[in-house]
Amino acid sequence: MPDFLTDFHDTTTFGATAGGGIDRQAGTPEHGAVRAWFRHRAEELGMTVAVDAIGNQYASYEWTPDAPHVLTGSHLDSQPLAGRFDGTYGVVASLHAAASLAEDVASGRLTPTHNLTVVDWFNEEGSRFEPSLMGSSVAVGQRALEDMLAVADVHGVSVASALESTGCRGTGAMPQVASYVELHIEQGRRLERSGMQIGAVSGNWCTRKVRVTVDGEQSHTGATLMSDRRDALSAASEIVLLVERIAGEYPEDAMVTSVGQFTVGPDVPGVVPGRVQLSLDLRSLDAGTVVEAWGTLRTRIGEVGARRNVEVGIEDFDLREAVPFPEAGVELTEKAAADAGVSCMRLETMAGHDAISMNRVVPTVLMFVPSVGGVSHCEREFTADADLVTGLEVLARVMGQLVVDGQGLF
Amino acid sequence: MPDFLTDFHDTTTFGATAGGGIDRQAGTPEHGAVRAWFRHRAEELGMTVAVDAIGNQYASYEWTPDAPHVLTGSHLDSQPLAGRFDGTYGVVASLHAAASLAEDVASGRLTPTHNLTVVDWFNEEGSRFEPSLMGSSVAVGQRALEDMLAVADVHGVSVASALESTGCRGTGAMPQVASYVELHIEQGRRLERSGMQIGAVSGNWCTRKVRVTVDGEQSHTGATLMSDRRDALSAASEIVLLVERIAGEYPEDAMVTSVGQFTVGPDVPGVVPGRVQLSLDLRSLDAGTVVEAWGTLRTRIGEVGARRNVEVGIEDFDLREAVPFPEAGVELTEKAAADAGVSCMRLETMAGHDAISMNRVVPTVLMFVPSVGGVSHCEREFTADADLVTGLEVLARVMGQLVVDGQGLF
Repeated sequence: MPDFLTDFHDTTTFGATAGGGIDRQAGTPEHGAVRAWFRHRAEELGMTVAVDAIGNQYASYEWTPDAPHVLTGSHLDSQPLAGRFDGTYGVVASLHAAASLAEDVASGRLTPTHNLTVVDWFNEEGSRFEPSLMGSSVAVGQRALEDMLAVADVHGVSVASALESTGCRGTGAMPQVASYVELHIEQGRRLERSGMQIGAVSGNWCTRKVRVTVDGEQSHTGATLMSDRRDALSAASEIVLLVERIAGEYPEDAMVTSVGQFTVGPDVPGVVPGRVQLSLDLRSLDAGTVVEAWGTLRTRIGEVGARRNVEVGIEDFDLREAVPFPEAGVELTEKAAADAGVSCMRLETMAGHDAISMNRVVPTVLMFVPSVGGVSHCEREFTADADLVTGLEVLARVMGQLVVDGQGLF
Repeated sequence: MPDFLTDFHDTTTFGATAGGGIDRQAGTPEHGAVRAWFRHRAEELGMTVAVDAIGNQYASYEWTPDAPHVLTGSHLDSQPLAGRFDGTYGVVASLHAAASLAEDVASGRLTPTHNLTVVDWFNEEGSRFEPSLMGSSVAVGQRALEDMLAVADVHGVSVASALESTGCRGTGAMPQVASYVELHIEQGRRLERSGMQIGAVSGNWCTRKVRVTVDGEQSHTGATLMSDRRDALSAASEIVLLVERIAGEYPEDAMVTSVGQFTVGPDVPGVVPGRVQLSLDLRSLDAGTVVEAWGTLRTRIGEVGARRNVEVGIEDFDLREAVPFPEAGVELTEKAAADAGVSCMRLETMAGHDAISMNRVVPTVLMFVPSVGGVSHCEREFTADADLVTGLEVLARVMGQLVVDGQGLF
C-alpha cells in the first residue's frame, strides 16, 4: 500500500493544472475521479463505504457494533485554479491515520470503544454551487436536502445531476457521530510568522455573505452622453471599493472584506453595462464588528444607487456565526502536539470549514498545519512534506484518544 | 410585395427578445436567418446577390454594364439584448429605396448612369467578434481578410466557422463602387432635442479603443489578510472610475468614455479575483482631446497598478480617426430633405458606422433619423414609423441623384 505522502501527491494528478495546482470544482468529472479513488483506496484499507443523498462519502471501520463513530475528514473539491492542499490533505491524512489505528486495533495495541469513519464532504468550496459547506450543512440538518439538490450552476446544471453523473448520489446516511476531527492547512500566515508547527483552532470568524444586484440601463458606449447614462458597472465599481475601504476603518487584521464573484452584463465592448451581479463577504472574529460594518456598508451602497439612479438589490444569503470550539478539544490537540514533540499555538479560523458545520452538533476538533506565505485558493498554495507528516501524526494521536475515550473527553 | 414598414417590422421577429428588442450577434443562427431573408427578398425584387469572403452580402441591379455602382446599406447584426432599429433599418430602407428606383428606371422616369447595390455588412457591432466594422473594414482594405477570419469568440468559434455555419462565406467581391450612402438611427438625442427630422452627418468622432488586463493574484476571501492581497478586481474597479472621471474633466458633451467589457477571473464567491480583462473607449470630435485624455488616463492607470502591486497590460487596439464627410454629400442630404419638405440639421456621429469605413475610399453620405430619448444598444431603442418613412424618402432621393449624376456631384 502506498505511504501517506505518495498517496497525497498522487491525488494532485486529478484535475492537475499547468500552473502546478488543481481544478476540481464540485461535481465535475475531475472531482468524480478523485472521489472514485477515495472509495477504492478506502476499500483496499478494509473500510466499508457509504454515500448519502447529498454526495458525502463515509468510509468506516466497524469495531464495536452499535457504538457511535468518531468522524474525521475534509473535502476533495477545489476552487478553480486552486492549490493541491486545501481539503485534500485532510481527507488523505484521515484515511492513513485511520488505517494506522486499524492496525493498532488488530494487533491489540488499541482497544476502541467507538467506531471510526473517514468522511469526504461534498462541495465545501461553494464555487460552482453556492453555498459553501453544502454537504456538511445538509448532514447536520442546517440546510434542506431538497433545496441543495436543486441548486444549479451558471450553466443550469443541478447538484442532483452533477452527483448523478459522478456516481456520488447515494442512499446511505451519516453514521451516528460522537465527535469530529479535521486537519487542514492554515491558509493564513500566523503559524508561519510565529514559527509554530500545529494550530489548535479555538473558534471561527463570523462571516456575512451578501449578493448584490445593480440594475442600470444598457446603452451605446459611443452615442450615449455621460449625463444620459445609468451605468451599472461604474456603480458596481464604487461598491467594490466601498467593500474594500470598510475593512480599513477597523483595526488592522480585525476584519477582511471581499468581492469574489462579479458578473457584468452584457459584457461586450460597445455597450455600457446594464447589470452587474456581485457577491461580497465581511469577516471578523467579533460578530458585532461584522454587524456594524455591514450596516454602514449597506447604507453606503444604497447611497451609490440613489446618486447614480440605478437599482440596487441586496440579499443577505448566509451568516456564519462565530462559535468557539470545545476547550477540551483544543487541549486535546495541544496535548497530542506536546506528546509528538512539536510546537502548537491556539488560533481562530478565518476561513470556513466543514468542522464549523459539525461543531453545531457534536464536540469538534480542528487543527492546522502551516501554509507558506498564507497563500490559498491559488495554484501557489504550498505546505512542506515535513509539515504534512507532522499534521498526520498529531491527527492520529487525537483520533486514537477519541476512539478510546470518546465522549468522556468533553 | 410587402411595403417598407411591413418588411421592416417583420425583420424584428428574427432573434426577437422578450423585452421587445432583438439579439442577433454576428454569425449566430438568428443573424443567419435574417441574412437569408435579405437574400430572398432581394431576389424577389429582381436583384442579383453576391457574398464575399468576409460575409458581406451585395444585392445588385445591373442597369449599365461595366458602370460603377452606387452602394447603399447597413448591417443586420446586433448587440446582445439590443434594439430593433440599429442597422436593420438602413438595410431594409435601402432595399425598398432601390426597388422604387428600379421601377423608375423600368418606366423610363429615371435614366441611370450607374448601377445600384444594396449591401448587408457583416459584423458591424463587434460584440461577439472584435473589432467592430469588420466586414466594411475588410472590403475597403483597412483590415486583412485572413486576420479577421481567424478572430474567435469567447467560446473559441472563429469568424470563418460562424460564416460557414450561417451560409455566408462566399467567393464574390464588392462591386466597383462610385459612392456610398447609409441611413441610420441617430442613437443620440440631438435631433429630438432640436425637433429636426433628418440629420446630415458632417463627420465622425475620433475613437480610441483599448484593452486592459489587470493581473493580481488569486487568494482566499476569508483567510487572506487585506495587507497580503493583490486584488485584481479592486484595481480594475479603480480603473473603471478613472475612465468615467476623465470625461468630466472636459467641457460637457465634449467627450464620452466607457468600459463595456469587464471579465473577472475566476469569478466565484470564495476567491479574491486574480485577473480582470476590460475594454475601454474614449471618444471626442476633437482628436487632440482623445489623445490628451488617453495620455492622462494611461498614466493614472499605471499609478493604480504600481500602488496596488498588480500588473497592468495595455493594448491600444483600435483608433478611429475623425474624418469629415464630403461637403457635397452633406449638401445632397440637405437638398433632398428640403425637396421632401422635411427639416434637416448637420451633426457629427459619435457612434461608429460602416459609412466611416467607406468614407476612406469613396465619397460617402451618412444620414440620421431621430431616436426617442437617444436610447440605443438597448431593447428600449425606438424610432416612430413616421420618422422611418421620412428617412426612407430622403434616402431614395439621394440615391436617385447619385445613380443619375454619380461622381459629378463630388
